[in-house]
Amino acid sequence: MERTARRLAELRKKMVETGIDLVALGPGKHTQWVLGFHTYPDERPAILLISRLSEAFLMPALNAEDSRGQTSVRLFPWEDAEGPDQSLADALEFIGARGARKVAIDETMRADFALLVLDSLPGVAHEFTLPTVGALRMRKDRAEYDILKENARINDRAMQAGMAALRPGITEREVADVIRAQFTQEGAKPLFWIVASGANGAFPHHHTSDRVIGPGDAVVVDIGGQKGEFPSDMTRMAVVGDAPEGYQEVHGVVEAAVQAALSAAKPGARACDVDRAARDVISKAGYGDFFVHRTGHGLGLDVHEPPFITATSQVLLDEGMVFSIEPGIYLPDRFGIRLEEIVYLRADGPEILSELPRDLHVAAG
Amino acid sequence: MERTARRLAELRKKMVETGIDLVALGPGKHTQWVLGFHTYPDERPAILLISRLSEAFLMPALNAEDSRGQTSVRLFPWEDAEGPDQSLADALEFIGARGARKVAIDETMRADFALLVLDSLPGVAHEFTLPTVGALRMRKDRAEYDILKENARINDRAMQAGMAALRPGITEREVADVIRAQFTQEGAKPLFWIVASGANGAFPHHHTSDRVIGPGDAVVVDIGGQKGEFPSDMTRMAVVGDAPEGYQEVHGVVEAAVQAALSAAKPGARACDVDRAARDVISKAGYGDFFVHRTGHGLGLDVHEPPFITATSQVLLDEGMVFSIEPGIYLPDRFGIRLEEIVYLRADGPEILSELPRDLHVAAG
Repeated sequence: MERTARRLAELRKKMVETGIDLVALGPGKHTQWVLGFHTYPDERPAILLISRLSEAFLMPALNAEDSRGQTSVRLFPWEDAEGPDQSLADALEFIGARGARKVAIDETMRADFALLVLDSLPGVAHEFTLPTVGALRMRKDRAEYDILKENARINDRAMQAGMAALRPGITEREVADVIRAQFTQEGAKPLFWIVASGANGAFPHHHTSDRVIGPGDAVVVDIGGQKGEFPSDMTRMAVVGDAPEGYQEVHGVVEAAVQAALSAAKPGARACDVDRAARDVISKAGYGDFFVHRTGHGLGLDVHEPPFITATSQVLLDEGMVFSIEPGIYLPDRFGIRLEEIVYLRADGPEILSELPRDLHVAAG
Repeated sequence: MERTARRLAELRKKMVETGIDLVALGPGKHTQWVLGFHTYPDERPAILLISRLSEAFLMPALNAEDSRGQTSVRLFPWEDAEGPDQSLADALEFIGARGARKVAIDETMRADFALLVLDSLPGVAHEFTLPTVGALRMRKDRAEYDILKENARINDRAMQAGMAALRPGITEREVADVIRAQFTQEGAKPLFWIVASGANGAFPHHHTSDRVIGPGDAVVVDIGGQKGEFPSDMTRMAVVGDAPEGYQEVHGVVEAAVQAALSAAKPGARACDVDRAARDVISKAGYGDFFVHRTGHGLGLDVHEPPFITATSQVLLDEGMVFSIEPGIYLPDRFGIRLEEIVYLRADGPEILSELPRDLHVAAG
């Protein structure tokens, strides 16, 4: 409860700074950040409403008892038989937000939840939560660093297990199974396991398949797990036997892009500066058209959260921010290469959480 | 592709009937229903846009290659560096929807996706998809029935395995593990596994815990798994040893409510008629305040989908609709009782998909 009180106070300070009268959060990570829990996510509107004065939780009646054990926030339950409209009006009245002029909407919540709030406040302006909740969630404290670091080390070992399993004849899915088992063994829940071999590597979000890995395949391994409050996320590259033609040159370009981004990532830099540093390296090498995604994303309660490291983001990087640096080059019908680190930004620059080198892993062909 | 063409034609007929100019669907089940797949769901806007004339898919560039292999819908990719605004405008232009006056918004999509569409169409009115996509998804054909039936039978066996494991000293989680293993063994993915014993049963959405089950506990078991396109969902009750005081009477009331709802569920009845039939039984027995949720929900690509069987739903039930009937009574600090069937509505009434009796399972105490 102490943490909740502190976070509500921080949030209200941001609300005043940004001219927000009301913050509306759905079941999910923003609510979890504020309250330490979030309620059951289904199609029944459940919305945490925070004004500058007070807070209220619009809640399906059938989850109210359960939630009362977890929060002291005043609940406004509604029953399936009546629908949420009256309880929402009561909740807005209770927190003095019937006249709200500018609301911060949880961008991740269901469209019908958001429009329920917006349609009940005629003429209200909306923005999303990046300047308020997002800005606060971006900075991680020492205790949060410790959890992230532990997860990064577990990921290192899961990656090593996957790399050790690579051999001609194994399928992508079998490699992923080894990785998932290692996460599980260490008490972490496997969250994602992209194993993209050969031409599959050219799809950044490849769905790990039953493709049999063979000699001459490059393999992208992008995995994450979660133990405790925060996840991990890391990408490494392997080849089985001899690398495909042209591989080494492109790998070198991606590695140089990672290093350029690491050098640019300092408190006071803009997120777009880090993206540009990586992108310039890749563009100058002639592969600009094949780096089809942003350079990175924040990591915390969500695997993807602010700060997003994009060409247009003006977010000022600051101490305590945690984000990925993961440039990639994707050559259709040939291979893909991505190298990804998660960094914790310190006064003197980024600390890489992983202790596993980015070197290409070469499995016997 | 043939199925997609048929479904688009059905959808356009509904659009004309309901005065909708544009349907906007996010990554998720509505898009899956139309196209047979949906794209990678993350914070990057990915929206299927359907006008009365044509369709377009706003798509993050990094998922475009992958999607091209799965759909012939014209893609409008956007890169992280530029953001989605221009591609969205181009897509709306392409399908002739720049002047749309009424849009059906996928109620499940992220708030920022929905507001991206709405904010780009000044003055547009919105509704959700129940009258269009929802109305079509409610009816299941023979092939879909077969998948649902198979899943119901798998659920029967998972339930039986869980019931067989019940004994004093076992924890809720251990019972859930047995159930999950049975689903997995039959090639189904376990989706949810509520095992709520003793006073935990009074929370309809209890999180299965490490509580040790003991003599005199009533146990709610509400489980679902999925093999193929559709899931299962069923709730049965057990007691360990002697039932708690008052249990049998309340169980009888819930059973009578199930039977009343089954009798009321006929083509041409309104969803609220079915809810009222169950609710009346429970209210007349004096437990109305303890039946805190609706009587049921549709089941299909989503575990919860229309038709919702609520006190206010005017949806006309029709042949081929599939929904749950699941009244419950929740007595705080004592126990909860819920009995749930999934039915397929036929001309002469509901066919229960499960073949497992609803009788109370009595485990040795």
